[in-house]
Amino acid sequence: MNGLVVRNIARADPAVIKGLGACGVATVHEAQGCAGLLASRLRPIFPGARLAASAVTVSVPPGDNWMVHVAIERLGPGDILVVAPTAPCENAYFGDLLATSTRARGGVGLVIDAGVRDLRTLVEMQFPVWSRAVFAQGTVKETLGSVNTPIVCAGQSIGPGDVIVADDDGVCVVRREEAGDVLTQAREREAREADKRRRLAAGELTLDIDDMRRRLAEAGLADV
Amino acid sequence: MNGLVVRNIARADPAVIKGLGACGVATVHEAQGCAGLLASRLRPIFPGARLAASAVTVSVPPGDNWMVHVAIERLGPGDILVVAPTAPCENAYFGDLLATSTRARGGVGLVIDAGVRDLRTLVEMQFPVWSRAVFAQGTVKETLGSVNTPIVCAGQSIGPGDVIVADDDGVCVVRREEAGDVLTQAREREAREADKRRRLAAGELTLDIDDMRRRLAEAGLADV
Amino acid sequence: MNGLVVRNIARADPAVIKGLGACGVATVHEAQGCAGLLASRLRPIFPGARLAASAVTVSVPPGDNWMVHVAIERLGPGDILVVAPTAPCENAYFGDLLATSTRARGGVGLVIDAGVRDLRTLVEMQFPVWSRAVFAQGTVKETLGSVNTPIVCAGQSIGPGDVIVADDDGVCVVRREEAGDVLTQAREREAREADKRRRLAAGELTLDIDDMRRRLAEAGLADV
Amino acid sequence: MNGLVVRNIARADPAVIKGLGACGVATVHEAQGCAGLLASRLRPIFPGARLAASAVTVSVPPGDNWMVHVAIERLGPGDILVVAPTAPCENAYFGDLLATSTRARGGVGLVIDAGVRDLRTLVEMQFPVWSRAVFAQGTVKETLGSVNTPIVCAGQSIGPGDVIVADDDGVCVVRREEAGDVLTQAREREAREADKRRRLAAGELTLDIDDMRRRLAEAGLADV
Amino acid sequence: MNGLVVRNIARADPAVIKGLGACGVATVHEAQGCAGLLASRLRPIFPGARLAASAVTVSVPPGDNWMVHVAIERLGPGDILVVAPTAPCENAYFGDLLATSTRARGGVGLVIDAGVRDLRTLVEMQFPVWSRAVFAQGTVKETLGSVNTPIVCAGQSIGPGDVIVADDDGVCVVRREEAGDVLTQAREREAREADKRRRLAAGELTLDIDDMRRRLAEAGLADV
Amino acid sequence: MNGLVVRNIARADPAVIKGLGACGVATVHEAQGCAGLLASRLRPIFPGARLAASAVTVSVPPGDNWMVHVAIERLGPGDILVVAPTAPCENAYFGDLLATSTRARGGVGLVIDAGVRDLRTLVEMQFPVWSRAVFAQGTVKETLGSVNTPIVCAGQSIGPGDVIVADDDGVCVVRREEAGDVLTQAREREAREADKRRRLAAGELTLDIDDMRRRLAEAGLADV
Repeated sequence: MNGLVVRNIARADPAVIKGLGACGVATVHEAQGCAGLLASRLRPIFPGARLAASAVTVSVPPGDNWMVHVAIERLGPGDILVVAPTAPCENAYFGDLLATSTRARGGVGLVIDAGVRDLRTLVEMQFPVWSRAVFAQGTVKETLGSVNTPIVCAGQSIGPGDVIVADDDGVCVVRREEAGDVLTQAREREAREADKRRRLAAGELTLDIDDMRRRLAEAGLADV
Repeated sequence: MNGLVVRNIARADPAVIKGLGACGVATVHEAQGCAGLLASRLRPIFPGARLAASAVTVSVPPGDNWMVHVAIERLGPGDILVVAPTAPCENAYFGDLLATSTRARGGVGLVIDAGVRDLRTLVEMQFPVWSRAVFAQGTVKETLGSVNTPIVCAGQSIGPGDVIVADDDGVCVVRREEAGDVLTQAREREAREADKRRRLAAGELTLDIDDMRRRLAEAGLADV
Repeated sequence: MNGLVVRNIARADPAVIKGLGACGVATVHEAQGCAGLLASRLRPIFPGARLAASAVTVSVPPGDNWMVHVAIERLGPGDILVVAPTAPCENAYFGDLLATSTRARGGVGLVIDAGVRDLRTLVEMQFPVWSRAVFAQGTVKETLGSVNTPIVCAGQSIGPGDVIVADDDGVCVVRREEAGDVLTQAREREAREADKRRRLAAGELTLDIDDMRRRLAEAGLADV
Repeated sequence: MNGLVVRNIARADPAVIKGLGACGVATVHEAQGCAGLLASRLRPIFPGARLAASAVTVSVPPGDNWMVHVAIERLGPGDILVVAPTAPCENAYFGDLLATSTRARGGVGLVIDAGVRDLRTLVEMQFPVWSRAVFAQGTVKETLGSVNTPIVCAGQSIGPGDVIVADDDGVCVVRREEAGDVLTQAREREAREADKRRRLAAGELTLDIDDMRRRLAEAGLADV
Repeated sequence: MNGLVVRNIARADPAVIKGLGACGVATVHEAQGCAGLLASRLRPIFPGARLAASAVTVSVPPGDNWMVHVAIERLGPGDILVVAPTAPCENAYFGDLLATSTRARGGVGLVIDAGVRDLRTLVEMQFPVWSRAVFAQGTVKETLGSVNTPIVCAGQSIGPGDVIVADDDGVCVVRREEAGDVLTQAREREAREADKRRRLAAGELTLDIDDMRRRLAEAGLADV
Repeated sequence: MNGLVVRNIARADPAVIKGLGACGVATVHEAQGCAGLLASRLRPIFPGARLAASAVTVSVPPGDNWMVHVAIERLGPGDILVVAPTAPCENAYFGDLLATSTRARGGVGLVIDAGVRDLRTLVEMQFPVWSRAVFAQGTVKETLGSVNTPIVCAGQSIGPGDVIVADDDGVCVVRREEAGDVLTQAREREAREADKRRRLAAGELTLDIDDMRRRLAEAGLADV
C-alpha cells in the first residue's frame, strides 16, 4: 500500500460531525458501545481544545515525514490529519510550519502517534494537536507511505473520512457510515445524563437512581 | 475480602487533617521519615489543587466501577475516595456524574490508580483528582470489590480513615493513629526550613549552614 | 571519577548563548544536524519557560543529592545545573530550598534526569526545571559523585560549559566550542523559515516551495 | 458489535498457510511490504515455537474472559485464537485448562495482547502462546465481547480467517485474500536471501552485492 | 520505621507452606479470591523454579543494600528474602556472594522489586530469584532501612512470616494466619481442575461443563 | 557528524580485552568505580553468551540501517558492532544475513539500542546480540549516519575502540586507555571475592567479614 494517495474520500454530514464534537469524546465513545477510543498515550498539547473532523489518514515510516507534506494537499475544509508511523517513533513529524500550511488549506488539527515540536508557537496559534510525545527530533523525506488508506493509529482502525472526535479526554473515532446513528445515541445519552446530574447534585445516589441495591445484595454484598 | 463494605470508620482529628494539608506532601513525607509517598504515576488533573482528607478506600476489579457507586454512600464530610484496581487498568472509573455525586455527599476529591474522564467538566468544577491516566474508556458494573478495607494503592498500603495529603507534588498517606505526631514533626520542619530559606536567599550555602564541608573532605572530595 | 569537583570551566560567549536561547530548541537542534536533543522524558514543570545557559554538570548516585549541594557553589552567573543519576532514579534531588540557593548564586534553572518537588513554590518562583518526574521522595547525603566532569544525561553526552538550550519542546545541548557556528546556522535557518511561513500561510504548499513533486513521482507515488 | 459471534468464516488455502509458516515472520512481513507486524510487546512464552494458522478473533473486556470460552467452540482444525482486550489489561485470560480445551478442539495456539498463566504446564504441553505478559491474575465471566469480528490486536487490524504467522521474532498478520500472493513474494525473497547468505559467508559485502557504494558517495559519505 | 530489625517472627506450619508450593501461584491466588499477586514486572531469572517460603521482609533505600546484609542474619531455614526499595530502583542489591551467604544460612531464594546481577552464577547455583531487572549497577552501604516490618513489594502488602509462593507465573503472597485455609481451598480447586482437565481433553467444552449457555443467551449473545 | 566514517581506530591490547571478558560485566563495572554500565533495557537474545571486544560504533537514523552495512567493512578481527539510533526506535537493523557478514569479516557480536530479527537463526549461529527489542520491522537505506565516531548508546558514552564487556548481566564499556588499569583492579576484586565466597559458604556473615556491626550500631540500628 506504500506510495498510494487516494484523492477523493467520502465524508460524513457536516452537521453530524459538528454534533459529535459538541457531545465530546466520553459521550460519543459510550454511545457507540464503549468503542473507538485511541490509546491514552495520545494527549492534547494544551488544555481546552475540542473538535470533530473528518480524518485524512497518513501512514509514515519511522523518522520520515514526507507523506505529511503530501497529505496536506489532500485536506478539505474541516479535515484533520491522522498520522500513524509503521513502527514506534517519537520524532517530530510536525511543527509550526506544517501547522501554518495545514490551517491555510482548511485543516483544523492533528492526531499523531508520534512527536511534535514548536510547542510554544502551536499553542500561540491555538492549533490543536493530540500526540504521543513532544520531541523536537527532526525527520527525513526519503521514503513513501500512504495517504487516505485505512490505518491503525494508537490502537484503533481508522479509515479516510471517519469522524475524529477529540477533547481533553483524548481521541475517539466514529465510522463514517455510523456517524448519524452514533450522534442520535449520543444525544439521548446526554439528555439522560443531564437529568441524572441534577438528581445527583441534590444528593440522590446512583445506587437508587439506577436501582443497584437489589443486584448488589444478590451478588452477596456484605455491609457491616 | 470481596463484597465487604465497612460502614463505620475512624478518622483523624479534623484540625490535624487540616494542618497536614497546609504543610503539603513534601514536608509531610519527610516528617514521617520519607515514607508514605504514592507512585509518581499519579498526577493531578489540573495544577494548584491541594488537600488533606480521610480515605474511603475502594478495591475494584479491572474495568468495573460498581464499588465506586457503593463507596460514595459511605463518604463523610471531608472524605476522599481512594480507588485501587486489583490489576493494572486505565479505564475511567469516574467522571463528572460521580464527581457531582461525591461532592453532594460531602466528598472532596479522588485518588485513583486508574483512569478518569470528563476532564473539562472536572476542571470547571475544580474537582481535584490524582490519577494514573486520563482515558475515557467506560466500565461495567458486574463484580463486587470492597469498601473501607485496607488496600495497596500505587505502591502504598492505605487503610480506611488514613489521612491523604495531596498537592502538585503527588499524594502521600499518613496513618490515622500517627497523624498528630506527624503534624508536629512537619511543623517543626517547616519552621527550620523558613529560616534556612532566608539564609539561602541571602547567598549562604547549605555546605555551610548544614556543615557539610568536613564530611565531604573526609569522604575524599577532590576540589580541583 | 567520583569525588571530583572541577572548579574552573570554560563557557561560551554570553552573546552566543543568548542568541541560541532566542532561536529555541527545535531550530538549534536542526542547525547542528539534528543532534543534541535530550530524551523526551524530560519535560518542563510549567509551560512557557525558555532559556540558554552554560552547564554545570553533576553526576549523582541514585537517591543521594549531596553533590547538588556541592555544585551550587560552583555556579557562575547564568549557569544551569545539569544533573544525571548513575542509575535510573525518580527521587527528588531538588526542591524550593535548593532553587532559592541556586538563584541566589546566579543559577538560572535545572535540567535533571530524575525527580523534583515543591512544585507549587517552584512555579511561583518561576524557576525553570526540566525533569523526568515530579516525585517528592527525599534523598540522603552519604556518597560522593562529581561536579563539572563529562556526563551522559537523558541520552546525550554533556560537558561542563556546554550550552543548554531548553524550552517547551525539551532540552538540547550544544558543544561549547561549536556554539558560535551553530548560532550562525540557526539564524540562517530562522530566516529561511520566516519566508517559508509567509508563503505557507498564503496557501502555497511545501510540495512546491521545496520542489518535492518530481522526486515523489520518481519514488513511485501513485495519486489515485 | 458486542455479543456477536460469527459462526462461519472463510480461511486461506491450507497449503498457503503452511507455506507462510515455513517462511517465518521476518520474511513474510518483508514480502508484504514491511506490513502486518504486531507490536514487540507480544513475546513467545518459550523459544522455538513457530506456526501459521487462521485467526479466530476474540474481542474481550478488560479482566473478563467469557468470550474466550465461547470462541473455543468456533475453532476449526489448525486455527489460532487471537485475543484483544478493549482496554489495556494484563490479566490471565488463558491457562492450562483452556489450552487443553483449545487443543482438543483442533486449535494450535494463542496470540493475546494480555496475560496468560500456568506457564509451566503450557511449556510442558508445548502449547505456543505469544502474549504481552505472564500474570496469573484471574478474570470474571460477566460481560459479552465478540468472536470472529474484525479487531485491532497489538497495533494491527486482524479479521477472522486472516493468516497469523508467529515465531521467535513475534507475530505477523497476512490478509486472507492476499495470502497466496504474499507467499509467492516470500518464497522469491527466500531464494534471493539464500544466495546472498552464501556470498556473505564467503566474505563479500552487501556494499558490493547490493551495489551501495555509488549511492553512498553521492549522499556524501566521507571515509577518512 | 527505619533502622528497625525484628528478630523473632512467626511462621506458618511448614507442612502448609510445602503444600502451597505444590499448588503453585495461579491456584493459590485463585484459592484466596484472586488476591495476593505481585506485579508482573517481577520475573524469574531462569525457568522452572518453584517454591513456597516464609518471608523475611527488607525495606531498603534506592541504591543501598546495607539492610540486605543485616537481613541475611535473620533468615531461618526455608525462609526467602523479600526486598522492596522505598523508591523505584533497578540497582543490583544482590549477586552471587549474597546468594552464597543466603543459602549457607538456610535461605531458599529472593524476591526483589529491583535488580540483581551475577546471573550466570545464580543460574549455575540454581538459586531462584524473582526480580524487576537484571542490572549490574552496584549499591552503597550508608543508610538504614528495616528488616521484618510490613512492606509493600510490587503492589502487595507483605508482612514478616507471610508465605511467598513463586513459580514461572510470578509471585503470590498468602497471609500467615490464612495459610492453612488457603491451602484447603487450593487443594479443592486442584481436585476440581483435574476432573475438568480430563473432560476438556476429551473434547467437552467449558460452555457445557460450567453451564454457560443459558447465561450467555440471557446476556444477549447473538450467534450468527 | 553525519556521513563520517573513520577508517582506522586504536584498540586496546588483545590480552587485556580477553582478561576483561573473563572477569565479566559485574566485576569490571565495580572495578572502574561502578561506572560504564549500559541501560538494563539491553538484554542478551540467548543466555550464556559472554565476550569482550573492541567497539566499532555506529550512529543511525531511526528505521534506517544503511550505516550498519558500511560499518561491517570497518570491522577488524574480534570487534563488536555497537549501534545507537538518534531517536528511540525498535526496528530490526540487523538479522541473520548481516550476522553472517559480520562473522565472515571477523566481528564477534552486536550491541544495539534498537531491534533485531531472525532470532531462531541467530541462536542457531550462537551469534551474541544484546538488544532493546526483538522486532522484525524492516528498515530503509536512505540516510547517512556515522561509523567510528563517539556515540551515546543506552545511556553510556562509547568511543571507537573502547572495550565492550557483555554477558548475562548486560553490557559495560571500558575506556580504551583505561582498560589495562581496570583489568588490574578487576582481578584484585576477583581474588578478594573468591576468599569471601569461601567464608560465606561456610556460614560466616558479611556483617562480620566486612566489619559492619559497629557502623550499623552507630547509625542507630535497633535490633528488637
